[in-house]
Amino acid sequence: MRDTARTRRLVLDAAARLVARQGTGVSIDLIAREAGVSKSGLLHHFRSRDQLFLELAEDLVEQFHRSVEAAVDPRDHAAGRLIRGYVNATFSATTDDLTSSEHITLAAALSGVPGVDALMREDTRRWAEAFDADGLHPDRVLLITQAADGASLAALYEGEPNPEKLRRTRELLLALSHGEGPLQGTP
Amino acid sequence: MRDTARTRRLVLDAAARLVARQGTGVSIDLIAREAGVSKSGLLHHFRSRDQLFLELAEDLVEQFHRSVEAAVDPRDHAAGRLIRGYVNATFSATTDDLTSSEHITLAAALSGVPGVDALMREDTRRWAEAFDADGLHPDRVLLITQAADGASLAALYEGEPNPEKLRRTRELLLALSHGEGPLQGTP
Repeated sequence: MRDTARTRRLVLDAAARLVARQGTGVSIDLIAREAGVSKSGLLHHFRSRDQLFLELAEDLVEQFHRSVEAAVDPRDHAAGRLIRGYVNATFSATTDDLTSSEHITLAAALSGVPGVDALMREDTRRWAEAFDADGLHPDRVLLITQAADGASLAALYEGEPNPEKLRRTRELLLALSHGEGPLQGTP
Repeated sequence: MRDTARTRRLVLDAAARLVARQGTGVSIDLIAREAGVSKSGLLHHFRSRDQLFLELAEDLVEQFHRSVEAAVDPRDHAAGRLIRGYVNATFSATTDDLTSSEHITLAAALSGVPGVDALMREDTRRWAEAFDADGLHPDRVLLITQAADGASLAALYEGEPNPEKLRRTRELLLALSHGEGPLQGTP
């Protein structure tokens, strides 16, 4: 069982790196070589290339949930504690070896894989339920999550990271997560 | 001159479609074939593949500026008129034939082309100056632009478009563009 988990991990990480750089056209042979496993070994764990890519998408979704859970402050019991974890997870330096443009390319490439749209719809429902339970006004949830998602794109659109801008955005979003009711001045 | 402009347009549009779907590994031959021009004709207008991709990035930057300018209400003379154009342009249905995940893939792929980082840094300065002149508080500019950018990603991360969510986000961002001073409740 431990070997199975380890082989699956090696293959998923290799697939993430290659799809991020080359798109979903990358061959099973190349993924197996990058992972250091045989092609038949790879296909024993993942039935097909599409199945591997779908499980890679599931893995990325779960990794993001875990990073948000890990970023929630256990002493924070106020409304908005989950969204503060979401903001902090989004703005933390990623621990893996993909650049932000590679992350985006990976997400965009996987969006075309059969089953990924259903996975993302289900995950969207899961986040919506979790944010409902988090107790913050829905307009604040909408604004904070979209701005956090947009900030994760900023380095891509700006040609270089801007740490001061990221710091200020994070500070503003955390402040907005502490307010009650709708945003002032909105309909 | 008119033929030059027409050929350049055909090549840039073909390159956009192919890079969005296949990344920057796509060959000059395939781009020429997709554009319906000869390879030597293509290389007469664009010296190399990297030069073509850099000019494609410049073209996309200019197209977005024009779409924002076209979305500014000429009767609107209040502070924030430019950012209201930015929001309206971002949320308008795109008129071209790329999906939102293809647009993102295109931007991510071009980010690795020599010269594109400098182009994006220069464009970031241009937007910063334009928003300074627009007269809205910088915290509002930061929040509105990041949330608009994030909303353009939403369909990619959610598996399907959510028109009601987009409509509400747009409404909130436009309302925030009418307020004076910093956002209430922020440091």
